[in-house]
Amino acid sequence: MTYCVAMCLADGLVFVSDSRTNAGVDHIATFRKLYTFGVEGERMIVLQCAGNLATSQSVISLLRQRLHGEGPHLYNVPSLFDAARLVGQTLREVVEHDAAPSMAAGVDMGCSFLLGGQIAGEPPALYNLYPQGNFIAATPDTPYFQIGESKYGKPILDRALRHDTDLEHALRCALISFDSTIRSNLSVGMPLDLLVYARDSLKIPAGFRVEEGDPYYEGVRAQWCGSLQRLLLELPCAPGSYLS
Amino acid sequence: MTYCVAMCLADGLVFVSDSRTNAGVDHIATFRKLYTFGVEGERMIVLQCAGNLATSQSVISLLRQRLHGEGPHLYNVPSLFDAARLVGQTLREVVEHDAAPSMAAGVDMGCSFLLGGQIAGEPPALYNLYPQGNFIAATPDTPYFQIGESKYGKPILDRALRHDTDLEHALRCALISFDSTIRSNLSVGMPLDLLVYARDSLKIPAGFRVEEGDPYYEGVRAQWCGSLQRLLLELPCAPGSYLS
Repeated sequence: MTYCVAMCLADGLVFVSDSRTNAGVDHIATFRKLYTFGVEGERMIVLQCAGNLATSQSVISLLRQRLHGEGPHLYNVPSLFDAARLVGQTLREVVEHDAAPSMAAGVDMGCSFLLGGQIAGEPPALYNLYPQGNFIAATPDTPYFQIGESKYGKPILDRALRHDTDLEHALRCALISFDSTIRSNLSVGMPLDLLVYARDSLKIPAGFRVEEGDPYYEGVRAQWCGSLQRLLLELPCAPGSYLS
Repeated sequence: MTYCVAMCLADGLVFVSDSRTNAGVDHIATFRKLYTFGVEGERMIVLQCAGNLATSQSVISLLRQRLHGEGPHLYNVPSLFDAARLVGQTLREVVEHDAAPSMAAGVDMGCSFLLGGQIAGEPPALYNLYPQGNFIAATPDTPYFQIGESKYGKPILDRALRHDTDLEHALRCALISFDSTIRSNLSVGMPLDLLVYARDSLKIPAGFRVEEGDPYYEGVRAQWCGSLQRLLLELPCAPGSYLS
């Protein structure tokens, strides 16, 4: 499995991906699931993927291969909406190419993408692409998307994230969402790849890989876990009727 | 869907169930999913169910109908292990009876049960029964089970619950687990049925129904949500490398 979160906020975009892939529990490996495309000062595009790794890698390879060709590609599409359509179309192309022999073997070739970024002249945007290649856009009402193993880490996002949350605070919220998921589900694992994009900067951030044992992340994990246990103790005692 | 939690702790047992059932999103109803059986001073048995409501109701009806018959029933089985086997057997009987016509229509007739309690002469125990009728028992290492929509509410249990957690504290932990689930998933809903059993009391607790607007539960929800947001703000700021 996989877990990826992306947020489209007033101040910019936040992306966090885990890096575990597994085919069964006895074939576990580390693969990056966060890819960047961009032209400094003109466009910044991030893709995150979940699902069949062969499919998602082929999609990324085709997108890269075509970057300097004649047709539409991620460096020449006029809008982020067109970028999402291009990725969706590429996904369909890969699945159609690979599906025929595999579907017979009952293998799910599908994968999902989150596509976020900004192209000069537009505000930042974030799209959630389904395995069918169609997609929805984030809005101020629903400023985040998740793909992969999303349920464990959803409550903290629903409780704490809003469109006007600042980027650094949103990143902490995402890290807690990942910690909750990693503790409860073996198929999501370290390291984490993260990337924070400030609105209108039109720079491709370097991003950061949070490795196992990273002092900041470990400190946040420990503080959060200890604080939650304290908060539970601080809640008022249940009334007698609850315990009768 | 449904969400039920049961805990088998040093001091006794805690059970919490939601009460929402749905067949699609346009057919939502309230049904109790927590049932008690017992003989004061001799045995106390609780069943919680998730899955096909027709199946679980039939299982409960057969278990009740047979309580005063000749064969093995929940008031005469010698151990809680035998009670779990009896419920598993009754579940198989119902599914075999009902499955033939329905399976053709692609309906899932399966359901899961949590069975917990105590019979005089034994310690309290808790079993998780699969739709196949087989089951596993809780241990001090894994003192809780969930059935139904379990992922949203699992992180808080994994972080805060241990075998030696006291019953009242464990109940608060369960209530937070339910709040996280209800906020993030429409198919789990109020009211909640809860029941706390003190080890060796061999009494059948009255239990309590937490209705929408219950002042204690609403207070705990609000305090928890506010405190989490404060905790996020209190975490140390992410280092510059995380935001680069």
